[in-house]
Amino acid sequence: MNEIKIFAPATIANLNCGFDVLGCCLDGIGDEMIFRKTAAKGIFITKITGADLPYETHKNVAGVAALAVYETQNCDFGIEIEIHKKIKAGSGIGSSSASAAGAVFGVNELLGKPFSKNELVAFAMKGEALASGSEHADNVAPCLLGNFTLVCGYNPLNVVAIESPKELFAVVLHPHIEVKTADARAVLPKEILMKDAITQTGNLGGFIAGLYANDYELISRSLQDVMVEPYRKNLIPNFDNVKNVALQSGALGSGISGAGPSIFALCKGKSIAENCSNAMQKSFTETGISFDIYISEINTKGVEIIN
Amino acid sequence: MNEIKIFAPATIANLNCGFDVLGCCLDGIGDEMIFRKTAAKGIFITKITGADLPYETHKNVAGVAALAVYETQNCDFGIEIEIHKKIKAGSGIGSSSASAAGAVFGVNELLGKPFSKNELVAFAMKGEALASGSEHADNVAPCLLGNFTLVCGYNPLNVVAIESPKELFAVVLHPHIEVKTADARAVLPKEILMKDAITQTGNLGGFIAGLYANDYELISRSLQDVMVEPYRKNLIPNFDNVKNVALQSGALGSGISGAGPSIFALCKGKSIAENCSNAMQKSFTETGISFDIYISEINTKGVEIIN
Repeated sequence: MNEIKIFAPATIANLNCGFDVLGCCLDGIGDEMIFRKTAAKGIFITKITGADLPYETHKNVAGVAALAVYETQNCDFGIEIEIHKKIKAGSGIGSSSASAAGAVFGVNELLGKPFSKNELVAFAMKGEALASGSEHADNVAPCLLGNFTLVCGYNPLNVVAIESPKELFAVVLHPHIEVKTADARAVLPKEILMKDAITQTGNLGGFIAGLYANDYELISRSLQDVMVEPYRKNLIPNFDNVKNVALQSGALGSGISGAGPSIFALCKGKSIAENCSNAMQKSFTETGISFDIYISEINTKGVEIIN
Repeated sequence: MNEIKIFAPATIANLNCGFDVLGCCLDGIGDEMIFRKTAAKGIFITKITGADLPYETHKNVAGVAALAVYETQNCDFGIEIEIHKKIKAGSGIGSSSASAAGAVFGVNELLGKPFSKNELVAFAMKGEALASGSEHADNVAPCLLGNFTLVCGYNPLNVVAIESPKELFAVVLHPHIEVKTADARAVLPKEILMKDAITQTGNLGGFIAGLYANDYELISRSLQDVMVEPYRKNLIPNFDNVKNVALQSGALGSGISGAGPSIFALCKGKSIAENCSNAMQKSFTETGISFDIYISEINTKGVEIIN
């Protein structure tokens, strides 16, 4: 195998009840990347479309992540990478994570798969660190593994993938405004009420139980955020209204995707997702801000080779 | 059916990662209660052994909980209750909860089962409120339902029972000292660090996933408490040493049972539980304080009728 093309999907992190620990993988929205063996050793970024990103390997999220995997092996060849970005930077649906996860997956394939997808999470975090300043896994894990993922801890890194109930769909509305992750972090308090922490643990526990038990009612009740949303929602125009119409349209839950500005809704079944998408569009149109909106099944495979 | 005898098991609440939301049900340790129909209407407590408790229905935890169920029906008979306490008050393994859960279960049986066990949780909370001043469900839920239970929320009350992996055993060491629940509450801060709340949600999520997936390693990694144990452990003599020897003996995790003073350990398999019990006993003996120690499977049935 000298050349492969891969699909690196978009992801939703946090999902209301799982700030910094929970994520899920989307379908149909994602980057494409091509990896090609070269005689010269090293990692080379040779083409970038869809975004204005640096070609220097050490300054590029995909480059840094790719190098982390590449340097574990004593290769007699190099790898060149084409990056075709479809996920907009700063959208809140894991743009940098898709680059990082895609890069480690593609390089690992050309190296003969020395690592499992689960092991690749730690390498992808190196790319994330370049993008956000800290190594976190809540987007790269679902991008690599598919389904829902829970980051149970970092010392040592411990990621669990949990199969999605079959009928779950996500709606994602991406407003064309920039919310910097640093700003989204800055509005959060350092301390929270013990009672809110208890509520949030109960919600996350309920959500995980709901996934295993295919209990949509439990999933719905658990999709609440008392820790982060109250502080971040003011960064997103018309957030409360968009969320409310999503819930009124039958969504199981709705909230901020990652650090925002994207707003997601989880729905049982495609027709509810479509109603929900229509209502969210209509509500957000009031802001006069342009946006994209997607409906997606939960991606059960994660990053993969395509033709 | 005019008379029944029931077993109301002891329970462990909190279990490190699930403060105020998680609990599990023990086997072999619990109260016995007898319920008998009477011609006179009302709830009457006619015999109490093993503890010095009030006979007045309105002042007795079992009485208050029993009345809550009894008064929902228009009965032409009353019920008298004998309470044979085996679980010591203030032990941290759900003594008042066993009284409350046993009472609602027994009365419900004699009334012809108008309520499911899950519905009975809310009534048992009325008894808990008399004991602790607030309605909480983290001990009454596992006592009624068996296995592990997660209280996902109170408005509305939402309790999920999760089957225990087959080989799980609990060791409980009960030091004969009193830790008042009010004191155990008073040492807790009102606010905690956001980063600790994130760690705790990851731990609880991991624990729930571990139960569903029968993943003992994940269960073990998740049995950590960064929210409560650091504050409460000083109320329990030699806590750190007892916990450490439990972990060294192969326990999956160890911590404070409920508000203490009991110390629990969860183990995979009976022989590890026995080693663990021996080590914990030996370590606690250094304090010169008397204690009881139990080894128990996880009770999968909860409160039940016995002969």
